Amino acid sequence: MSTDPRTGMEILDEDTCWELLATADIARLGVVVGDDLEIFPINFVLDGRTIVFRTGEGTKLAAITIAHRVVLEADGHYLASNQAWSVVVRGEAERLEDFQDIYRAEALPLRAWTGHPKQWFVRIRPTSVTGRGFSIVAPIADR
Amino acid sequence: MSTDPRTGMEILDEDTCWELLATADIARLGVVVGDDLEIFPINFVLDGRTIVFRTGEGTKLAAITIAHRVVLEADGHYLASNQAWSVVVRGEAERLEDFQDIYRAEALPLRAWTGHPKQWFVRIRPTSVTGRGFSIVAPIADR
Repeated sequence: MSTDPRTGMEILDEDTCWELLATADIARLGVVVGDDLEIFPINFVLDGRTIVFRTGEGTKLAAITIAHRVVLEADGHYLASNQAWSVVVRGEAERLEDFQDIYRAEALPLRAWTGHPKQWFVRIRPTSVTGRGFSIVAPIADR
Repeated sequence: MSTDPRTGMEILDEDTCWELLATADIARLGVVVGDDLEIFPINFVLDGRTIVFRTGEGTKLAAITIAHRVVLEADGHYLASNQAWSVVVRGEAERLEDFQDIYRAEALPLRAWTGHPKQWFVRIRPTSVTGRGFSIVAPIADR
């Protein structure tokens, strides 16, 4: 690990990023569609070094089907310290179409955040995984 | 309020979106820079119907200075119910340069998440504010 002198943030290695991602179950998914940027909260689960989530018909799925390239950001606190982390995964999203892939995805411990049917699985295959760690300051201590 | 029949999500009116934003102090900021998309967690505070946050030198500030157009997403749970919400603010970000603006921003109850110096204030002036509410399902109840 190293520190970015410009921001004072710790630069997390990729293994650490995956360990932290495994502790989160909510992330924000960003997709660029034309000139527009969409950001959605999603529930996700790791499957090896890929990310799987569910989606229904609608903007999110449509955006992914068109755009493929996505950015996922997850963040959280380390337990028992005043440290926080943020991990950003860039990659290609694909809707699972193959029955074997779908059966495999159905066996994953993927928590649904919403009750509405979400019939499609989407897998993100990362092209880059980066993370930063930083200290959290007590409330309104910045001035 | 109305419900999106496609997703089953409740469409929140703008006043509700602002009320919910006032309850959050962390959001994710998305910025498109060229072909690339950046997403950062930020601490923010409302100032009327604008959003103010601090930043240091580095990618985030550079991205905003170049891009101006940003998307901010905040989400959370309603207290005492199984309902969650997500609000998306699209707008133009500007670094505060005028002393009066900076003094005003310094008086805001803006919590710093990181201990590193963040000498600049940025204000987002919204061009659109949209929100959705949805039910949360118990863990692994989707299969």
